[in-house]
Amino acid sequence: MSFTRFDRYVDRHARTFAERLQILCRMPSVAARGTGMRATAEAVEQMMQRVGIGTRSFRIGNGYPIIYGECGSGPHTYLIYGHYDVQPVGHLTDWSVGPFAASILDGKLYARGAANSKGDLLARLAAVESYQKTFGKLPASFRFIVEGEDGLASPSLYRFSSEHAELLQAEGCLWDEGYRDTKERPVISLGFKGITFLELRVHGARSDLHSKWGTIVPNPAWRLVQALSTITSPKGVITIDGFSSHLAPVTPDDLAALKAIELDEEGLKREFRIAGWVRSMKGAELVKEHIFGPTCTICGIQTGHTEAGPKTVLPGSAMARLDFRLVPDLTPDLVVKLLRDHLHVRGFKDIEVIELGSAPLAKSPATSRVARAAIESALEVYGVPPIVYPMDPSSGPVGVVCGASVPSAPVASFGTSYAGSNPHGPDEHIRLDDFLQSIKFIGRVIHQLGEAKTKSTSGRTSGVHEKSALRSGG
Amino acid sequence: MSFTRFDRYVDRHARTFAERLQILCRMPSVAARGTGMRATAEAVEQMMQRVGIGTRSFRIGNGYPIIYGECGSGPHTYLIYGHYDVQPVGHLTDWSVGPFAASILDGKLYARGAANSKGDLLARLAAVESYQKTFGKLPASFRFIVEGEDGLASPSLYRFSSEHAELLQAEGCLWDEGYRDTKERPVISLGFKGITFLELRVHGARSDLHSKWGTIVPNPAWRLVQALSTITSPKGVITIDGFSSHLAPVTPDDLAALKAIELDEEGLKREFRIAGWVRSMKGAELVKEHIFGPTCTICGIQTGHTEAGPKTVLPGSAMARLDFRLVPDLTPDLVVKLLRDHLHVRGFKDIEVIELGSAPLAKSPATSRVARAAIESALEVYGVPPIVYPMDPSSGPVGVVCGASVPSAPVASFGTSYAGSNPHGPDEHIRLDDFLQSIKFIGRVIHQLGEAKTKSTSGRTSGVHEKSALRSGG
Repeated sequence: MSFTRFDRYVDRHARTFAERLQILCRMPSVAARGTGMRATAEAVEQMMQRVGIGTRSFRIGNGYPIIYGECGSGPHTYLIYGHYDVQPVGHLTDWSVGPFAASILDGKLYARGAANSKGDLLARLAAVESYQKTFGKLPASFRFIVEGEDGLASPSLYRFSSEHAELLQAEGCLWDEGYRDTKERPVISLGFKGITFLELRVHGARSDLHSKWGTIVPNPAWRLVQALSTITSPKGVITIDGFSSHLAPVTPDDLAALKAIELDEEGLKREFRIAGWVRSMKGAELVKEHIFGPTCTICGIQTGHTEAGPKTVLPGSAMARLDFRLVPDLTPDLVVKLLRDHLHVRGFKDIEVIELGSAPLAKSPATSRVARAAIESALEVYGVPPIVYPMDPSSGPVGVVCGASVPSAPVASFGTSYAGSNPHGPDEHIRLDDFLQSIKFIGRVIHQLGEAKTKSTSGRTSGVHEKSALRSGG
Repeated sequence: MSFTRFDRYVDRHARTFAERLQILCRMPSVAARGTGMRATAEAVEQMMQRVGIGTRSFRIGNGYPIIYGECGSGPHTYLIYGHYDVQPVGHLTDWSVGPFAASILDGKLYARGAANSKGDLLARLAAVESYQKTFGKLPASFRFIVEGEDGLASPSLYRFSSEHAELLQAEGCLWDEGYRDTKERPVISLGFKGITFLELRVHGARSDLHSKWGTIVPNPAWRLVQALSTITSPKGVITIDGFSSHLAPVTPDDLAALKAIELDEEGLKREFRIAGWVRSMKGAELVKEHIFGPTCTICGIQTGHTEAGPKTVLPGSAMARLDFRLVPDLTPDLVVKLLRDHLHVRGFKDIEVIELGSAPLAKSPATSRVARAAIESALEVYGVPPIVYPMDPSSGPVGVVCGASVPSAPVASFGTSYAGSNPHGPDEHIRLDDFLQSIKFIGRVIHQLGEAKTKSTSGRTSGVHEKSALRSGG
């Protein structure tokens, strides 16, 4: 079926679509600050309705609204995930343009949230509109889930998933993470690592003391350091008792998939300003570690006096935050249990381990309907084979959304940004050409998902669906 | 010689002395903030002049003035150290009264700086005045050194000591640290530990990254933890290569002196809200460790994201501050060298070790003229034998001031506060009765130091005088 009319519609409405994105990007929906959240949710709901999506808004507790939308019909049902909140802007002085001015300069739209991920959301809506205007009815049933708590680890979405599981029943799910890499290849992910985010706390004296007491008063900072040092080796390998025995071998399919992936090692090293990688890895080994390696990252440590000035104190408490990125067959509960046991056995019973959030991993095969639709459409639109990650090294509430179906719905994730978009930093932006290509790409994905005759098997997402109580993932 | 007239003078002028202290305590001379520093320095200089001390004010670079003063004459010359700056007030809401109101409630004068150590300074001036009014001429030559950078690790004093060493020539030095313990016994110190205050820094990527990169990007927080963990054992013993071989055995004299010292273990545990001491020590072992044990204290660690919110990052850098309290025969330079070598040998060449400040230890025998004058006067005024610390577990620029004489001048340190004075916390205060007793005590010390016939030997402070370039101690 020809997309000539569809593509022409997109091109003719390029300016309209960009203007809608500017309107949305001018709304400062920073979830962490609570600014403009309700207005943005309402604007999104109206934009969805305007392209023919029937919506319902769910407010769970004091959370920001989840906008649920349905459109199309057909034998197949798919979920489309999005979010309308954005990251904090950081230091305003780091920006070349106002983060909520949504200025277009040299074909790029600059705004906090342009890349992550208002551009993705509006590309999906524009694709729905363009499809209906040129093909008529949508070829399948689509269910939008648009949350406002991506930056808050999605607490409402977790409760929504347990309270309204019936609305999340689907054969597949389209997620919104993805970009064009440094070599302009679209990156598609077929899963995400799980995560568990922990805080370790140690208490000493009632408050920071004069450090002369370091002779005889226990120092919680030393306790924390000694405990942490048993968790990884100096070479960065996780050494928690029993941890490695739960790592599933990478499957032959996944090993084959890895062969098509390369990291732009030199480009990334330049971008990060680092001299080399962990354990001096490179090439295929580096790719395998990045995609299938579990992590235990110290995300932060705070103890004592760390501001300017010669203040010598014995800290009254010490705190570290750790996140584990989980690969098969690790689950958040298992990792927390292993860590607690590991510390206990070594006498670190005074180290409190607090769970701040978690999300199960989600992983689906390249043969799923959503995967094939995405991969084939990408080749058609971008003219190059996409880079397909069997599992993205990042995490999200994917398993929670996909896991509402039994068995879990397979996922394909792709986006509108590119390697230079700087989605969490200053001058976040997308290229408008990418935005238009993304609309064209999504139109083809929609089309393929409706096709009655499909060569795909119905691949299912593997991974454990977490207990459905309110939990948050990072 | 009878002190009846002296004591009566002090009692009759109790109110005047307290009012002068209130005036000084109402000046918010927080060195760390730079508030009211010049006005306070001027007020102190005038107060010194008013009791007949000839003064000179030294301003070194942009530092706060050092007020040097001379009074009295005789065959012996002594230094009297003081400082007019105070600690930051912390949270105002923690105070029951304004920290610069200098309110007198129930016989206690509440103010930031009352205990540390404007009360000490004015007690010394009041003793000089009272002595002259009742005995006539001072019996020895006294040189006041009053600085405004106690809270900043005394950078000006270090330069003053090297540039004006001739003004610091003396046979002994009276320092201003000391208090009445929980059993009302006056505490006198005959030395102070040395200190070296260091910052360890590790650099990773140019900024904090998304923690998904924890797979392959080196994490400076892990490097720091792994490096630190080699510095002490889990039991809190310093394990730096070669460190213990430089620890001098405690001398028989010092061991004997320790026998007279007891820590109020239960009282301190209650105050600190801790269940027990390091390595479950107690009794004599605890006292010995507190006074003659070296320390390596983690004073602070900062890395990554530690504020509220589920932000999972891979830190771009990590920083720890350490202080070492030094006992014989450790010197700042030696400890820094041992630490650097220790880290180097273990492959931690990426850990930057930055010296933030240091002070040599100072330690003098109980037989020195200043020690005997203080010990005997304390017994007379307080009616109980003082607790004599052969070396105080804290540190200060004592070695720098005393070390200007060759050999170093012996030191005796005592103060006006008591165990409940809370000198660095909220509601800092002194008891006015202590203030008056302190004046009477200092009068007797002055008198004894002038006596021609003394039973003391001229004990000398041991310890190494640090290189005289600008260095700061904490």
